[in-house]
Amino acid sequence: MLLDYKKLIDRQLNDILNDLPSLPIYNPIKYILNLGGKRFRASLTLLSADIYCGNPQKAIHEAAAIELFHNFTLIHDDIMDDAPLRRAQPTVHEKWDPNTAILSGDLLYAFVNKILALSPVQSSKIHFLFQQTALEVCEGQSLDMAFENQVDVSKEDYIHMIKLKTAVLVACGLKIGALIGGASQADASLMYDFGINLGIAFQIHDDILDVYPTEATFGKKVGGDILEKKKTLLFIDLLSKLKDESIKELYVFLDDSAIDEQDKIDHVKTLFQDYNVLSVVESFKDEYYNEALGCVNQLSIKDNEKGKLMNFAKALMERKY
Amino acid sequence: MLLDYKKLIDRQLNDILNDLPSLPIYNPIKYILNLGGKRFRASLTLLSADIYCGNPQKAIHEAAAIELFHNFTLIHDDIMDDAPLRRAQPTVHEKWDPNTAILSGDLLYAFVNKILALSPVQSSKIHFLFQQTALEVCEGQSLDMAFENQVDVSKEDYIHMIKLKTAVLVACGLKIGALIGGASQADASLMYDFGINLGIAFQIHDDILDVYPTEATFGKKVGGDILEKKKTLLFIDLLSKLKDESIKELYVFLDDSAIDEQDKIDHVKTLFQDYNVLSVVESFKDEYYNEALGCVNQLSIKDNEKGKLMNFAKALMERKY
Repeated sequence: MLLDYKKLIDRQLNDILNDLPSLPIYNPIKYILNLGGKRFRASLTLLSADIYCGNPQKAIHEAAAIELFHNFTLIHDDIMDDAPLRRAQPTVHEKWDPNTAILSGDLLYAFVNKILALSPVQSSKIHFLFQQTALEVCEGQSLDMAFENQVDVSKEDYIHMIKLKTAVLVACGLKIGALIGGASQADASLMYDFGINLGIAFQIHDDILDVYPTEATFGKKVGGDILEKKKTLLFIDLLSKLKDESIKELYVFLDDSAIDEQDKIDHVKTLFQDYNVLSVVESFKDEYYNEALGCVNQLSIKDNEKGKLMNFAKALMERKY
Repeated sequence: MLLDYKKLIDRQLNDILNDLPSLPIYNPIKYILNLGGKRFRASLTLLSADIYCGNPQKAIHEAAAIELFHNFTLIHDDIMDDAPLRRAQPTVHEKWDPNTAILSGDLLYAFVNKILALSPVQSSKIHFLFQQTALEVCEGQSLDMAFENQVDVSKEDYIHMIKLKTAVLVACGLKIGALIGGASQADASLMYDFGINLGIAFQIHDDILDVYPTEATFGKKVGGDILEKKKTLLFIDLLSKLKDESIKELYVFLDDSAIDEQDKIDHVKTLFQDYNVLSVVESFKDEYYNEALGCVNQLSIKDNEKGKLMNFAKALMERKY
């Protein structure tokens, strides 16, 4: 089932790419879309529409817009994070240059808006939700950047940040799918809440996988977040349990370029173990995951449809990388 | 009259700025808006609506969106052009940093889209026009960047580039104003064409003012385009009249850091004079300006309304800096 939605969205994206003008500034857009991806945001949009009207294709333009908007944020976030790789391939600003990455990102966002403007679905409610979400995603990225230079970041701060940076787009896609499918206002809101909780759980799962991958990862450096001293939920929990003096020592250790990277990762993982960090973070994840399932349970849809949403959520949470 | 529209738009922008969240990422947006500006794109949108329905306020949200979108492009273009100053003040990426400039620009564009989604005017035709224009503006910027490293840029290439980079947004604002005011399809199209021609003439005028300012400029370096070897219409016309050998010599001369900047500017100005460049470029400008007036003449509106548009165009063309 999931794969069917992915096929639909990949076909739609392919059609879009084939229709793009030949101007070179469109090449980075073709490039990043061709790097692949799970397309789970767009798939959830289609699933949501399918549940309410039996026709996922009705939300195909909005699903594509969600996926393309996500890719726009990837292009710009990679510049801001100075990331060299994306899915084991050079990022856009590395393969071209930062200016081309800025501009092709802008162009992609404009393209997203054109898709929305051309969609047979013309609803100011949907337009507003989409653009309010876009705004929040940018706000989330600004918080993520600010956290890098902020000493005290609480778990609540972090959850708020990933809610904006990651979860609202998942929620937006689900709600738009529901609205297009003709869901009640109550169900559309529950779909949104499902997306918020699922998105937060998804991001926490991502943070865990960075340190504890369950399978050979593909082009991702294990422990990359640790080396970047990224304020993930794991790191924040650890910092909250260390005395000021130990935090200082830890930063000196991580900043010491003479120390081997693997030793740094191993050391922090030992600390995670000593301070019971993983289980705390896992229980956070489970809390949001269960909250997400609770939202599904409240939806006014048949049990087998609830099962589809729950299976999707489960698959997302069980992914290995 | 012009000033009245500027007051309306400045008041609207002020209201918008006052309502922005207190999150630091909004500060660069407040900053660039407070640097001021002629707001002529938005004023033309209001004038156009006013002509057709007598109520410029009906197009105030779209006029603000046009102005804010323009400022979004300024923030990102300044990064790409590595420009230190904008209206004699530090550019956003200089005052903050490039990442903040990228993100606050993205946020501003998202904000523009939210304004459009919330406007009482809900027309898919207007949404499409706006987003198609946004796309073209990005395409124009990509051509402008490409021209820097391109040997042969024809006058036609240049006109096509400034049409996309500058003129389509002016045209878009005028057409949206007309549509909101209830103009016929024919008049809305003529308004668009008026904007295209006026926008092109405006940009050529800008290029001329960079070399031949008629008054003390405010924070703008006279001859800056020459020092950057920018492919303006003046420079393109000169290059088209020089032999390959002379072009080579000219570039060696302009690249020689031992030569005084003023000497470089004076030398190129002498070449402009020797090769009759200014009068060729002036006649190009006049051609587009007259074409713009011709569009106004064809509009199905009263003569005094035509006079308002013509006076606006005249004022734009007579500005000193």
